[in-house]
Amino acid sequence: MKLPNVVEELIDSFEKLPGIGRKTAQRLAFYLLRVPQRDLDHFAHALQELKTKTHLCSVCHNLTESDICPICADNHRDHTKICVVESFQDVIALEKAGGYEGVYHVLHGSISPLNNIGPEELFMKDLFTRLKNDKIQEIILATNTSLEGEATAMYIADKIKEMQQAGLITDIKVTRIGRGLPTGVELEYADDDTLINALNARREM
Amino acid sequence: MKLPNVVEELIDSFEKLPGIGRKTAQRLAFYLLRVPQRDLDHFAHALQELKTKTHLCSVCHNLTESDICPICADNHRDHTKICVVESFQDVIALEKAGGYEGVYHVLHGSISPLNNIGPEELFMKDLFTRLKNDKIQEIILATNTSLEGEATAMYIADKIKEMQQAGLITDIKVTRIGRGLPTGVELEYADDDTLINALNARREM
Repeated sequence: MKLPNVVEELIDSFEKLPGIGRKTAQRLAFYLLRVPQRDLDHFAHALQELKTKTHLCSVCHNLTESDICPICADNHRDHTKICVVESFQDVIALEKAGGYEGVYHVLHGSISPLNNIGPEELFMKDLFTRLKNDKIQEIILATNTSLEGEATAMYIADKIKEMQQAGLITDIKVTRIGRGLPTGVELEYADDDTLINALNARREM
Repeated sequence: MKLPNVVEELIDSFEKLPGIGRKTAQRLAFYLLRVPQRDLDHFAHALQELKTKTHLCSVCHNLTESDICPICADNHRDHTKICVVESFQDVIALEKAGGYEGVYHVLHGSISPLNNIGPEELFMKDLFTRLKNDKIQEIILATNTSLEGEATAMYIADKIKEMQQAGLITDIKVTRIGRGLPTGVELEYADDDTLINALNARREM
């Protein structure tokens, strides 16, 4: 028996999501058949506006609704410290952990030659521009502790050293997030305490 | 950090689905941020029209787009045989298995006193009306082999016997789907061969 087209389309949409197979997609679609229309409309509305109502902060590239994200717009934050992370999920994790008062810079990835991702594919250039314009005192490199994350941190540290030697920027302290984090683990999934410890135990590069 | 409202709303919608927790809901929402707007619109469209574009067949209560489902509307099917199932997922499973040429009746559940579901909560009355009006020769009771499914089959078989004794309907053969199915298993998840064997091994009640 052919299912109604609209049901097939919904199953297809669910099946495209990561970690959801055909049987699960069917189960979800059939479940939604018994849900109030109001809930379906809410769900649909959120999907349609997901990308139109969000964009990246023009300063730090964090996910936001406004042109500048609430963190960059907050005068009570310490704008002399920039914490460099791979993804906005990392910002969420660090903010949830609390204890960090500076601002962020979201690279949206890490340098990964195997996947053809170099510094040009990341929001790297903007970071160096920020260093020239702003009165930055410290850069905390909080990329993941994976090979790619380490390479990315190394790349940024080297680049900043070069810029300082060329006299392009003033003296900036470059630190790496403390290795209280177990190696190879994704920052996003670390527990709050480990994240706070790691922030406190940051070392100069 | 507070996520943009629309992202939170989407996470909430995913989290309401069965088997999807907070972390998975976030992962799905964040994944969709990188999907083309066209795909999001398709997904949203399918959700909005899921219930407005589908309804139950006025004859057998199968899920359909038209007033009468394609199976009931098909003149090549054997309309003297009705296979009674608990859900439209069971119809899909039996049709996928192939080998059955009759029509269906979908009860949308089974008798379950513990959950306060009696015959009145199911599409049971309509089944008996069909028996009176149509030239039915056989009723195949293909409810699940769970306690509730067995009780439902028993109830229908008894009811038909009563109707025959009262002279309300002519002689109808009442069969139970062959117990090639392992007891306690949901019909929907049985493999094709087991389903075909079970259909062929049906016995008179």
